[in-house]
Amino acid sequence: MGLKFRLALIMLSLSHRQFLNLRQTRAGCYALRACHSAHSPVRGQAPGSSPRLHNSLTKSKTSLPLNSEKPLKWYSCGPTVYDTSHLGHARNYLSQDVIRRVLADYFNYDVHYVMNITDIDDKIISRTRESFFVERLSSQYSQLTQELITETSLFLRDFVSSQLAPSIPELSHLDLGDTTSRPQVLEALDNFVAASSAPMVDAKLIMNASSAKRCLEALIMSQARLNSPAASDKAAVEELIKESRDILGPMLNLKFNEETIDSAQYAKTAAIWEARFFRDMSRLNVLPPDTVTRASEYVSEIIGFVQGIMKKGYAYTSNGSVYFDTQAFTQSGEHQYNKLLTANRTREGINQDVVRAHIPDKKAAADFALWKATKPGEPSWPSPWGGGRPGWHIECSVMASSIFEDHMHIHSGGVDLLFPHHTNELAQSEAYHGCSDWVDCFIHIGHLHIDGLKMSKSLKNFITIEDLLKTYTARQLRLAFLLRPWDSRLDFSDTIMKQEALVLETSLNNFFSHISSLMLDDATFKIGHQFGADERDLRAKFDDARALFRKALSDSVNTPAAMNAIRTLVSQTSAYMNRPSSTVDGLLILGIGRWITQMLEMFGLGNHDESRVGWDSDSTQRSGSSDMDVLLPYLQAMSSFRDDVRRISKSKSPSMAKELLTLCDRIREDVLPPLGVQLSDRADGAALIKCIPPRLPSDSKAPNSDGLADPSHTTQNDPLENSEVHPHNMFKPPYATGLYGTWDDQGIPLTDAGGLDLSKNLRKKLQKRWKHQMDIYSQNQGST
Amino acid sequence: MGLKFRLALIMLSLSHRQFLNLRQTRAGCYALRACHSAHSPVRGQAPGSSPRLHNSLTKSKTSLPLNSEKPLKWYSCGPTVYDTSHLGHARNYLSQDVIRRVLADYFNYDVHYVMNITDIDDKIISRTRESFFVERLSSQYSQLTQELITETSLFLRDFVSSQLAPSIPELSHLDLGDTTSRPQVLEALDNFVAASSAPMVDAKLIMNASSAKRCLEALIMSQARLNSPAASDKAAVEELIKESRDILGPMLNLKFNEETIDSAQYAKTAAIWEARFFRDMSRLNVLPPDTVTRASEYVSEIIGFVQGIMKKGYAYTSNGSVYFDTQAFTQSGEHQYNKLLTANRTREGINQDVVRAHIPDKKAAADFALWKATKPGEPSWPSPWGGGRPGWHIECSVMASSIFEDHMHIHSGGVDLLFPHHTNELAQSEAYHGCSDWVDCFIHIGHLHIDGLKMSKSLKNFITIEDLLKTYTARQLRLAFLLRPWDSRLDFSDTIMKQEALVLETSLNNFFSHISSLMLDDATFKIGHQFGADERDLRAKFDDARALFRKALSDSVNTPAAMNAIRTLVSQTSAYMNRPSSTVDGLLILGIGRWITQMLEMFGLGNHDESRVGWDSDSTQRSGSSDMDVLLPYLQAMSSFRDDVRRISKSKSPSMAKELLTLCDRIREDVLPPLGVQLSDRADGAALIKCIPPRLPSDSKAPNSDGLADPSHTTQNDPLENSEVHPHNMFKPPYATGLYGTWDDQGIPLTDAGGLDLSKNLRKKLQKRWKHQMDIYSQNQGST
Repeated sequence: MGLKFRLALIMLSLSHRQFLNLRQTRAGCYALRACHSAHSPVRGQAPGSSPRLHNSLTKSKTSLPLNSEKPLKWYSCGPTVYDTSHLGHARNYLSQDVIRRVLADYFNYDVHYVMNITDIDDKIISRTRESFFVERLSSQYSQLTQELITETSLFLRDFVSSQLAPSIPELSHLDLGDTTSRPQVLEALDNFVAASSAPMVDAKLIMNASSAKRCLEALIMSQARLNSPAASDKAAVEELIKESRDILGPMLNLKFNEETIDSAQYAKTAAIWEARFFRDMSRLNVLPPDTVTRASEYVSEIIGFVQGIMKKGYAYTSNGSVYFDTQAFTQSGEHQYNKLLTANRTREGINQDVVRAHIPDKKAAADFALWKATKPGEPSWPSPWGGGRPGWHIECSVMASSIFEDHMHIHSGGVDLLFPHHTNELAQSEAYHGCSDWVDCFIHIGHLHIDGLKMSKSLKNFITIEDLLKTYTARQLRLAFLLRPWDSRLDFSDTIMKQEALVLETSLNNFFSHISSLMLDDATFKIGHQFGADERDLRAKFDDARALFRKALSDSVNTPAAMNAIRTLVSQTSAYMNRPSSTVDGLLILGIGRWITQMLEMFGLGNHDESRVGWDSDSTQRSGSSDMDVLLPYLQAMSSFRDDVRRISKSKSPSMAKELLTLCDRIREDVLPPLGVQLSDRADGAALIKCIPPRLPSDSKAPNSDGLADPSHTTQNDPLENSEVHPHNMFKPPYATGLYGTWDDQGIPLTDAGGLDLSKNLRKKLQKRWKHQMDIYSQNQGST
Repeated sequence: MGLKFRLALIMLSLSHRQFLNLRQTRAGCYALRACHSAHSPVRGQAPGSSPRLHNSLTKSKTSLPLNSEKPLKWYSCGPTVYDTSHLGHARNYLSQDVIRRVLADYFNYDVHYVMNITDIDDKIISRTRESFFVERLSSQYSQLTQELITETSLFLRDFVSSQLAPSIPELSHLDLGDTTSRPQVLEALDNFVAASSAPMVDAKLIMNASSAKRCLEALIMSQARLNSPAASDKAAVEELIKESRDILGPMLNLKFNEETIDSAQYAKTAAIWEARFFRDMSRLNVLPPDTVTRASEYVSEIIGFVQGIMKKGYAYTSNGSVYFDTQAFTQSGEHQYNKLLTANRTREGINQDVVRAHIPDKKAAADFALWKATKPGEPSWPSPWGGGRPGWHIECSVMASSIFEDHMHIHSGGVDLLFPHHTNELAQSEAYHGCSDWVDCFIHIGHLHIDGLKMSKSLKNFITIEDLLKTYTARQLRLAFLLRPWDSRLDFSDTIMKQEALVLETSLNNFFSHISSLMLDDATFKIGHQFGADERDLRAKFDDARALFRKALSDSVNTPAAMNAIRTLVSQTSAYMNRPSSTVDGLLILGIGRWITQMLEMFGLGNHDESRVGWDSDSTQRSGSSDMDVLLPYLQAMSSFRDDVRRISKSKSPSMAKELLTLCDRIREDVLPPLGVQLSDRADGAALIKCIPPRLPSDSKAPNSDGLADPSHTTQNDPLENSEVHPHNMFKPPYATGLYGTWDDQGIPLTDAGGLDLSKNLRKKLQKRWKHQMDIYSQNQGST
């Protein structure tokens, strides 16, 4: 089993107990350290001597250290795990995966890539509590009752009056408590949802109206079911609660807001979504991080870190919370609070005029919480300031410092994290470490929009990774991303996928097929002495393409330019291969094909398991390991076995023959096509094996069906059985490609493609086929 | 089919006509060019900033150009193709392959690797002529005659008197013409061969004595056969000639030395051995060159090049030949003739006191032929100096210059080529181009000795690559080579293979298995928050290993030091994994395992086809691409098909059943085992598939054979059918590894390893097996 897949499974199978074990945090806080001045030369490298990355800190391109003896330290802000991963996550982590692969596998840096998981967060808390209370409600009813309907109805009334009525005037004078007014409410909601379109109307409002509508419809349906005992069983309860979930969740959480629930519930929510996140990443061929840190596992380190900041005078307590003192930090003269924001004021996606609510506890509006005093019902950890939980920003400061201490080369995240998260994280860390260069290079992945709009559930343009992979493959998505700069906004659309990514994929597939087919053509494909003007020219273009590719990747991993170098080389090589009536330098086109293959695989476009450990099994006999190399002998064995069963069956009693032949049909029609194999039965009894794109059994009805028709009808139905083919050629390409290695004088194979002698049995069989072909060939010669 | 293998096939299938086509040489000679001074900084790089290679020109380590925009130009002296490739070839080309991979795949250089094929050469000529004359002789006799025996006998007499008698006194007074003296001659030869041991006696002499002995024995046997017509058929002729081949070949060639044979014969010999060379290289996982040049295809360029040297005054004609004028070259003041030799006077394997025969045609003993006047019977090309053929050294000068013109970064070859070949090649090229830095870095691969002695046919320690691969795998050989510096002598022995290469291979295999088994152990293998002191320590060791590895490869591709860094890291990681009763940081050991895997594959120790073009087929569903992942569905289809045939057959008339069952036996015993598949029939009718090392049909007789015995005997014969296994576990590892991905509550699989739903049919079958297992499990529980 692939390691990547295994990884996802392991994460999925994290038990509750195991998860709690992970909570045992390491004691100890950080010694104060002088800032590591050895790191500063990094930004002073001569340009062009090492790859550079667009740095949000300087708004310029920063050179990475050259020939470093130590690995590149890279901290990536991971997901907050409370919901399904969507296309925005794909854009962020897939783009980082590409940059990581380029640095590690192209520029040969040793990289230590750390990713955190935010598993303490408002959204996780509310999602967990909502699920908990909804499930508890559900468990209280074994069948539909008036009580449940009324309770739900009251929650809906409160929801509509608090969340919708203020913005939808038609609702303000309707009362949901009065069942007769329900149709009118429904109509009002319907009209509102149908007429509204984001971004004209607040997206959240549309979503809430939709939820209310679904809930109300379920209530009406349930009310009707109450009269029929058969229709009001547990399933009816579940349906009502499912349809009302978006109303019941927040309303129940509001009702029970002071109730403490088992803290393991929060951990369980996070563990489930974390496992799904990594499963989705694995499907996208995103490599697993080198180290994963979870906020919940670092609470004691966080407390120590906050104490460290306080000691420096950059934080203060207030009502059981601790806040970062932005004014003290700025006025120290040693630090700059908002340097990321300042550098990026004009940058895409950054709100320049952030308005921060002034909370009475804070000294200044810009101050932010390092430690939040417990609110009733929330998970809580003991601290010197009483029960509470860490602020979001401090989590990353502490986890990154725990692994990398006072310096890292790269810090990455989506551009939406630039402010406030990264701005605050940087301030805290530099306050704690007493330095001003905690991060050398801050990189931010651009936004992803859908058809020009921000992705949002309410806009109905919210695409989960799971859904996306039903339409496009991971390779196609990656190609689409590679064709856009990682640091600017990407407008995702079917048009881009179809007109760019799929077109490029097809053109690359065609290119590879072209090389493969030329290799089978001995008259064209030559090894040696083709190094004339055309070859010299193509090799110069190959050299240029590699230099351009290198230059593009050195220039802040400019993948569109790098892909363009490949695309140009593909055209040039195709033009060379298409020259009229000429041979090609086989090694040159192989070399080009191989380089392009390697670079595409370097980008993560291959399909093998890159997190695999251990070399392949050693079999010096085997010449290759492409799927067909591996499969063909097996297919041959299976097909020839099947041929024999057919032969025997045909010679015996009718009823048995029929049974066997139905079986033969079934393997051909139901079993093999989904595996990408098509058998074409032929008159001589030996089926022809073809590789096809895998397809569903229902698509693959072949015209000839032994079990249903007279077997004698299956003659001459194979389009490739060609009476014009001399038997001397029948076992050679293109009639039998990749099957055999050497042939005798008559053209009958002696060895398989791997050079192993064929068995006596198989030789006999082939001789028989040869004779049959000679018969039909001779007849054809006679008849023309 | 793998490209590498395809390459070998293409070369093997080069027809005679095709080969002749390749002869059409490109016209034109080289424009004189000023030496390219832009290349000179290469030798002045700051140390440590780029990888360095041991340079035979300077006897020091030369830095390679850093971040070059143009590819590294590398010319490698390829083989003279007249015989089987042996371990010496393996040492040379495999070592170069490692260096090439390190520069291209580790240091990310674009490399243009050119290899020539010497297909015009004295040895090819004599080998071809000998074969031609021997075959002609053989074709003249359809049965054994006294005439043939006498003729052979006379050749042997002449051979013995000219080649052996001068050195073996006992033979000088014996006459082979006298048949009665034959036993004495035989005894004398026998005694000589038995008593002699190289290196005390000239190896060639021992080999000749052995050949004479074999010939004489065959003559005595043939004489006896003459009396029996049945025993003197064509086969007897062939046997005599085969046993006498080493005598007849040179003697016939001597006899017909002025006879001209079809020049296509020479080309055919070269084409055959060239194809075998590339086939052997492919078996050793040596990548194909980027460009192959053949001497025979460059004759017109060679003539132009010789003319260019003559124009500069560094060559003279003499009796239809052209010689290089070493004195004029040295006295020019611009060039140094023997700079490679001077630098390497003390170097291993270089004969310091080369004695050169003074040929009357030459001005000085050190002068050497650029163009050799035709000798009777030899292949010949027209030239301004009359018919002739190129000298050996000039072939490489011209082919290298044809591709790279007046400069290259690396020139490589075995250390035995240092003098005279490379010395003379360099002088010619610098004479022609008017430069003194034609090659930046000359690298020479060290000798290979066997058990301390030079490898030689006569010493019976001559090992062909084909033979070697019967004992060791290509991976094991490569490991052995990696453990020795490429530029010093390597003493090959079974001890080294077994005590070093195989031990290392086993230790790496164990390491990979250890990681895999930990991954299956959820209690130990953890993702997240294991970053304590042990993990920090291990990661520091990992970083150190990577730095050491990089340093070792930078230092003239020091593979022993690099392998040592890996070996140390393996021990350290194993120690970490073996800590008593503790969890492991899963991502850390995965990261280490993955890096080691990548580096071993970078060295060419993997087993996939690296000359492959095109990405893998895209199936986002598939989680891995190990062979088993690819194969399993096919095997399942085949096996389940077979199961059904068996079921149907068993229910029908006895004769038909027997036929079908024999068929079933055959696929199990003859067809599948060589493919590495073993089917174990079980009582429930569903065979168990196992992957086994591929083996010959004869090895694989299973105890149960449906066609020969009562099928009902086939119960309980499967060693893995274990009544102690609870059915809940039977479809999970280790009982079914890599087969399925998810299971239902009972442990019956829902999806395959790739996550695809199983077919209804398969599910039914598995349910049946599950029930059967539950039966035997319950019985077992009851009985204990």
